[in-house]
Amino acid sequence: MTMEAERTLRGEELTQLGELAAQLRVDAIRCSTRAGSGHPTSSLSAADLMAVLIARHLRYDWVNAGNRANDHLIFSKGHASPLLYAVLRAVGAISEQELMETYRQLGSRLQGHPTPALPWVDVATGSLGQGLPVGVGIALAGQYLDHLPFHVWALCGDSEMAEGSIWEALDKAGHYGLRNLTAIVDVNRLGQRGPTELEWDLDTYRRRVEAFGCHPIVVDGHDLAAIDDAFGRARQATGPTVVLARTIKGKGVPDVENQPGWHGKPLKHDMAERAVQALGGVRQIRVAGPRPEPSPPAEAPAAPPLELPRYEKGEQVATRNAYGDALRALGSRPDVVALDGEVSDSTRADKFGEAYPDRFFEMFISEQQLVAAAVGLQVRGYRPFAATFAAFLSRAYDFIRMAAISRADIALSGSHAGVEIGADGPSQMGLEDLAALRAVQGSTVLYPSDAVSCAALVAQMADRKGIVYLRTTRGKYPVLYDNGDDFPIGGSKLLRGGKTDDVALIGAGVTVHNCLAAADELAREGITARVIDLYSVKPLDQQRLLDAVRDTGGRLVVVEDHYPEGGLGSAVLEALADLAGPVRVKHLAVHGLPTSGTSAQLMDQAGIGVHAIVSAARALA
Amino acid sequence: MTMEAERTLRGEELTQLGELAAQLRVDAIRCSTRAGSGHPTSSLSAADLMAVLIARHLRYDWVNAGNRANDHLIFSKGHASPLLYAVLRAVGAISEQELMETYRQLGSRLQGHPTPALPWVDVATGSLGQGLPVGVGIALAGQYLDHLPFHVWALCGDSEMAEGSIWEALDKAGHYGLRNLTAIVDVNRLGQRGPTELEWDLDTYRRRVEAFGCHPIVVDGHDLAAIDDAFGRARQATGPTVVLARTIKGKGVPDVENQPGWHGKPLKHDMAERAVQALGGVRQIRVAGPRPEPSPPAEAPAAPPLELPRYEKGEQVATRNAYGDALRALGSRPDVVALDGEVSDSTRADKFGEAYPDRFFEMFISEQQLVAAAVGLQVRGYRPFAATFAAFLSRAYDFIRMAAISRADIALSGSHAGVEIGADGPSQMGLEDLAALRAVQGSTVLYPSDAVSCAALVAQMADRKGIVYLRTTRGKYPVLYDNGDDFPIGGSKLLRGGKTDDVALIGAGVTVHNCLAAADELAREGITARVIDLYSVKPLDQQRLLDAVRDTGGRLVVVEDHYPEGGLGSAVLEALADLAGPVRVKHLAVHGLPTSGTSAQLMDQAGIGVHAIVSAARALA
Repeated sequence: MTMEAERTLRGEELTQLGELAAQLRVDAIRCSTRAGSGHPTSSLSAADLMAVLIARHLRYDWVNAGNRANDHLIFSKGHASPLLYAVLRAVGAISEQELMETYRQLGSRLQGHPTPALPWVDVATGSLGQGLPVGVGIALAGQYLDHLPFHVWALCGDSEMAEGSIWEALDKAGHYGLRNLTAIVDVNRLGQRGPTELEWDLDTYRRRVEAFGCHPIVVDGHDLAAIDDAFGRARQATGPTVVLARTIKGKGVPDVENQPGWHGKPLKHDMAERAVQALGGVRQIRVAGPRPEPSPPAEAPAAPPLELPRYEKGEQVATRNAYGDALRALGSRPDVVALDGEVSDSTRADKFGEAYPDRFFEMFISEQQLVAAAVGLQVRGYRPFAATFAAFLSRAYDFIRMAAISRADIALSGSHAGVEIGADGPSQMGLEDLAALRAVQGSTVLYPSDAVSCAALVAQMADRKGIVYLRTTRGKYPVLYDNGDDFPIGGSKLLRGGKTDDVALIGAGVTVHNCLAAADELAREGITARVIDLYSVKPLDQQRLLDAVRDTGGRLVVVEDHYPEGGLGSAVLEALADLAGPVRVKHLAVHGLPTSGTSAQLMDQAGIGVHAIVSAARALA
Repeated sequence: MTMEAERTLRGEELTQLGELAAQLRVDAIRCSTRAGSGHPTSSLSAADLMAVLIARHLRYDWVNAGNRANDHLIFSKGHASPLLYAVLRAVGAISEQELMETYRQLGSRLQGHPTPALPWVDVATGSLGQGLPVGVGIALAGQYLDHLPFHVWALCGDSEMAEGSIWEALDKAGHYGLRNLTAIVDVNRLGQRGPTELEWDLDTYRRRVEAFGCHPIVVDGHDLAAIDDAFGRARQATGPTVVLARTIKGKGVPDVENQPGWHGKPLKHDMAERAVQALGGVRQIRVAGPRPEPSPPAEAPAAPPLELPRYEKGEQVATRNAYGDALRALGSRPDVVALDGEVSDSTRADKFGEAYPDRFFEMFISEQQLVAAAVGLQVRGYRPFAATFAAFLSRAYDFIRMAAISRADIALSGSHAGVEIGADGPSQMGLEDLAALRAVQGSTVLYPSDAVSCAALVAQMADRKGIVYLRTTRGKYPVLYDNGDDFPIGGSKLLRGGKTDDVALIGAGVTVHNCLAAADELAREGITARVIDLYSVKPLDQQRLLDAVRDTGGRLVVVEDHYPEGGLGSAVLEALADLAGPVRVKHLAVHGLPTSGTSAQLMDQAGIGVHAIVSAARALA
């Protein structure tokens, strides 16, 4: 192992840093023992790293977490929350009492893994390999959009270096030359159940990092002067830096140092007491680290009137094209940014990219990083729209799940949804996306049937809280609505129907067109069918459904281009679950595994075509 | 770029290979033009690579795809299906007629992206970055279990090298020293919408591959002799090899060679005709490549009687422990293998690992590779059980989705599901897993409430087709059932209830215990509550629900430790959707974002505790 450090710190300074590190260790031990759970040993290994960082490198205005010039500190190894919270106490952000009495308790903002319930925490971590990718997004914002000198520091565990997402992140950091990003890897050799894959093979880590376009600095993670030198060089670097710190898990508590079997286990009370004594007891150090340079307050972005694209009724337009058109229109807002997973000519995010190349980020084929970068960009106040095929957003499902816990506001567009795509076959069809995205906490799920409604929904996505998912269709279908029509999220549209009808046909997206054709056919048989466009799948327009139940005697047909479980059908049933009156719902969805074919063939084969809708309606009416 | 090849091929042999490559090109062009869609240019770049492979290196008995000594060929770049199908025609596996008349048509096994509808295709590809990880699983089987000399060849695109999953795969290939694995990367410089991230920077690819523990060979992908040398060396290597082939997209058709804008576009008819002419026209070459060495037929594994673990009624046992116990018991079957994502002391897969270390594969923190390896192992006839936290299976959702398209038979165990886990907080809670896994095509979803039922279900998982998901609980709960009780998949258990009841309480997993306590409390108020354990969430016991509707006047309370959308509640509603009679379902699920706390506190806070169930039942009764 090459130790490359220059030692510029001496004497008194080193002693003070050592004291601070000891306090971080003591506090991490105390709070986890008191809580009866947590990860003290994973905190102890990184205590020296964090002591040097907060005392000498992290430029942070702790009184004002919203200061736009603040550095960002992300615990990618979120399980080291005792250390993070010990840091917050050391800088005076939280009190000793809060740390000791509330950690991991109900109602506390000091949760088992960090979440933005704390103002100093940008994003929730705890699913490994996510903090660094989000840091890439924050660094992209700093270097390419904010043009502010803040730095992003991500503390990573060595176990999480086995996650592919870490390498997506380093690859993008290198590609975009993110000089404002430093990953600090706490190589403590031990994972949850034993040694990590590479243990202390720092040289392999170094070669990997280098090959991925980042500058590695190998350092003894318990040598305060060496750490200081590494962080100083990282801040001055011309590209992304990865500080590879060789550390000892449990460092400072000889009984557990470098011992397996101590992951995620608090020290027993007597053991903790001895350890705290050996570390010099409880301290009351209040560290004052560097402050950010003053930066001009962000100007409130000018809000030019939004001119949405216009379409002619009956014109054949794919909703994915409307997504691109509307996104380009939204580009007049300087806070709107777009990302894509190397398929922007399909998702039509390229329309934004051509108009606003400075606010378009190509993430290539790395959907996890695509979503993580969006999360990072919204940390800096931007409104990111990230697009790929609906099917491939499933690659980033854990990132979307975590983004919801981060209370991130991001817009996702999944194109080419359903068997409708035709010949490319099932690998390219998103057929479980509605179920997966509906189940995301606090999410919004939209699925427009035509270009006008799609554009109107895209416009609203830019101000919607939480994870907002838009499902778009590959093929061209006629425009159904008038420009300027209102499409509130949580609403729906009544396309056909009278005061009472024999049956209601309920669709969203492409199946709305099938429902309309079916209603025509049923009308020829003397069956009056109401047609409802549930473009807002979550939240759902419950009142429209209740009206339909009332006006049809409870006869509903729900049709979706999705597998039968958890999608539009379930959404309708959930909305009507607690209804006293009788309701019969015929649910048409994609049964069986689709193949290649034309759109019409595959919809017919799946049982969601016009003929199937007519049959289902007949059976009810 | 270092070209390291020795040229051992000369004269006639080279001419023949060139002719074969030309046929592959001609056929790829013809079939995609005929179909009107497909990816000819991505096929043309790799035609020389495949010509050399099938003629001289791939040991394959095309008449018997099930020959256990066959090499494996995986098109990780599944969009190059025209090339794969041209290969199948060249070896005589399919006819020219099938290729020309059925490609991408409804009912054809020659789908837009390859699927195992074809016996020579191990797994579906088309979601990039998955074929190679699955190849790692096949290679693990070959080297560690089968001890057969077959080789795994995975043709990758350069775009997919941006997927983190590729690096998870190479990392594991290196870690396990898979000398029977060769990745062939078709570095044609152009992605879907423009240049790839690294274009023709072969040296960076080389350094990355090397740092990840694999042996890179850089080669001109249109130099037949050099390719031949590279493949020969790959087969003889002592570890995994990555052949980095510099190629030209569209090679052989000057109009499109190295041109952007030609991804995924068939040549127009006149253009195709000219190209075919320029390439020398249609050929009828039938190539006879190397055959596998004969290998003894697989012995039918002895089937010792399964002795499931036994528990005492009332004993406190966590279902995750029962998973470990039952899996260890299943280990008596030599085809059962287990994998874990570095949390086996939590999922309790370690019980199997300790008993059968030779059939346990540690995948470290790389859940995508965890699932991909399982898929690969089942290609070789094993019954893999892969485990991690329920929350972290979301990381592999795209792999699970694709595994379903591959018709893979794999068992997944997600532990620590729900708010029940307590203090660790929401990042560790699987609260969308039931929705996500239910929506997977052909899946089975199981969620036992006690150790006896869990063990009985684990036993059945080993013979179940498709994706079988088991959800387990962190905490200990009393054993409810007698050893030897029957728990058929698709069944349920009636824990309380008479001929008629005032209300039915329906739970699964941990909420069954809350339902039982609620029934006791309701009984004290004179309300008779039926309690149903829906341990089989998919398929669901519809008859049990219909009986409950009949016997309670349609009064149901469904309780789940899951977000409200798409889970157990939706499953119940879907099963009752088409019922004429009135049903009222009170659905209790996790509303809002959970925090840290104790199990009981968090269940109460979420509204799925005993008190909430009692209130809901009262409101109905």
